[in-house]
Amino acid sequence: MDSLRPFHGPWPGMSMWRARPRRSCAIMCTGSTAPLFDVNDAGQGDQVTRIPAADRRSALVRAALRVVADRGVAQATTRAIVAEAGMSLASFHYAFQSRDELMVELIRYVVAEEATAVLPEPSSTESQGQDDIQSLRQILRDGLQRYADHMSRDPLREKAMLELTQYALRSPELRHLAVAQYERYHALAAEALDTAARRSGSVWLHPVGEVARLLVSLTDGLTIAWLVDRNDTATATLLDFAADSVAALGRPA
Amino acid sequence: MDSLRPFHGPWPGMSMWRARPRRSCAIMCTGSTAPLFDVNDAGQGDQVTRIPAADRRSALVRAALRVVADRGVAQATTRAIVAEAGMSLASFHYAFQSRDELMVELIRYVVAEEATAVLPEPSSTESQGQDDIQSLRQILRDGLQRYADHMSRDPLREKAMLELTQYALRSPELRHLAVAQYERYHALAAEALDTAARRSGSVWLHPVGEVARLLVSLTDGLTIAWLVDRNDTATATLLDFAADSVAALGRPA
Repeated sequence: MDSLRPFHGPWPGMSMWRARPRRSCAIMCTGSTAPLFDVNDAGQGDQVTRIPAADRRSALVRAALRVVADRGVAQATTRAIVAEAGMSLASFHYAFQSRDELMVELIRYVVAEEATAVLPEPSSTESQGQDDIQSLRQILRDGLQRYADHMSRDPLREKAMLELTQYALRSPELRHLAVAQYERYHALAAEALDTAARRSGSVWLHPVGEVARLLVSLTDGLTIAWLVDRNDTATATLLDFAADSVAALGRPA
Repeated sequence: MDSLRPFHGPWPGMSMWRARPRRSCAIMCTGSTAPLFDVNDAGQGDQVTRIPAADRRSALVRAALRVVADRGVAQATTRAIVAEAGMSLASFHYAFQSRDELMVELIRYVVAEEATAVLPEPSSTESQGQDDIQSLRQILRDGLQRYADHMSRDPLREKAMLELTQYALRSPELRHLAVAQYERYHALAAEALDTAARRSGSVWLHPVGEVARLLVSLTDGLTIAWLVDRNDTATATLLDFAADSVAALGRPA
C-alpha cells in the first residue's frame, strides 16, 4: 500500500502530481494555520513570488476547506476561494492548474488530518502485549472516541468531506478522487486495526481489509446520523456497538 | 411515531402540508410511472387543469428525482425539472409553492420507496415463532440483501438521497428535512427490527431505537462505499458482518 502513503508519495491516479514532485509535500509541510495574505497582481507582480509556492498552495487549500464547509461544494468557485484566501486569481493559477487540482489536494489534506486524529498513538507499552479480547475492544472504542471527538470539534469539515465525495462521484473525470479517498480511508483503517491487534495480542479472523471496510462504513454512517440530529447520547451508544461489532471479528492470538 | 407515518399523515414540521390536506396523498396514490406531458400555458391555459393536481405533483417529483440523480441537486432547478417533466413553469407553480416544497415531497417519495423494498414481507408463518438466534440473523441478512438489491438496481437514486441530505443540512431553513428523513429511516428500521424479533422469537437486549440507529448507520456506510467502488464482493462480506453485528444485540426470548 506504499502508493497510498499520505504525505510523501503520489496520490493514486494523479499523474499530474507525479509530474510535479516538488509540490507533493506542500500542505503537510506547512504547519501554519494563519491565512497568507497575498497582494493583488496588478502592478505588483513582483511580490507574488515572495510567497513560496508550497505556502500559497497550503493557504488556498485551507481557504477552500473554509468555503466548502461554510457554503458547500457548488459555491466553492475559484473566485470564492481566492477571495477567502485574500489572493489574486493569478496567484491561484500560479499554484494550481485548475479548481479540480485544488479539490484533489483538499481531499488529501483532510484525510491526512483525520489520520493524525484517529490513528492510535505510538505506545511504549506496545511490545508488552496485553492479551485479551477486552483489551482489543477497548483500543477500538478509544479510537472511535478519538474519531467522534475530531468530528465534534469541526462538524463542517466532516460535512465538507461527504459533499466532496458526492461531488467527485458526480463527474466521470473526478470519480477517481472518490475512489482514492476511500482507498485511503480503508488503508488507514487497516493500519489502525493492525496496530490494535498487535497491541492487544489479537488476530483478525478475516482479512484486515474486510474488517477495515466495516470500520469505515460504521464511522461514515454514524457521522451522517450525528450531522443530522447531533444526538451525542445516541452516538455514544453507537460507538459502543461499533467497537463490539469490530472486536467480534478478532480473537486472542 | 404516528406523525412519521409515510403516506397518510403530515410530515413533521411541514405545516404547509397540513394546510393542504387534499394533496398529502398525491405521490403515493399515483401508481403511474409514465411522464405526464403537460401543455404550455400560453394560449392554452384551459388545458392545464385537465391534469389533476395530484398527478401533476407526482410527475414533477419523478422528474425531479431523474434530474437530481442525473445531474445533482445543484442542477435541479425548477426550470430543469419542468423541462424534464414536459410541463410549463405555470403548471409547476400550480402544483408546488416552491422548489423546496418539491424537494420535501421528493424525500418522502424515495424514503417510502425504500420502505417498500426493505421491510420484511408479511408472513403467514409469523405466529409460528421460530426460536433461535440464527433465525434472527438470517432474517436480518435477508433484509440487508433486499436493501442491497434495491441499491444496485438504481444507484443514482441512492446517490440522490445522500445529496439531498447534504443539501438539506446546508441550509438552516431546510435542516428539518434531513432530520425528518433520518427520523423516518430510524422508525422504519425499528419497525423492521421489531418484525424480525417477533418472527424469530427473539428480544432485543437494548431499546430497539438504539439498534435501529446501528442498522441505519451500517446501511448508510455500506452504500457510500459501494457507490464509490462498486465492489460487490466486499459489499456481500459487509452485509454478513452487518447482520452479525445487529443479531448480536438480540437473544432468544
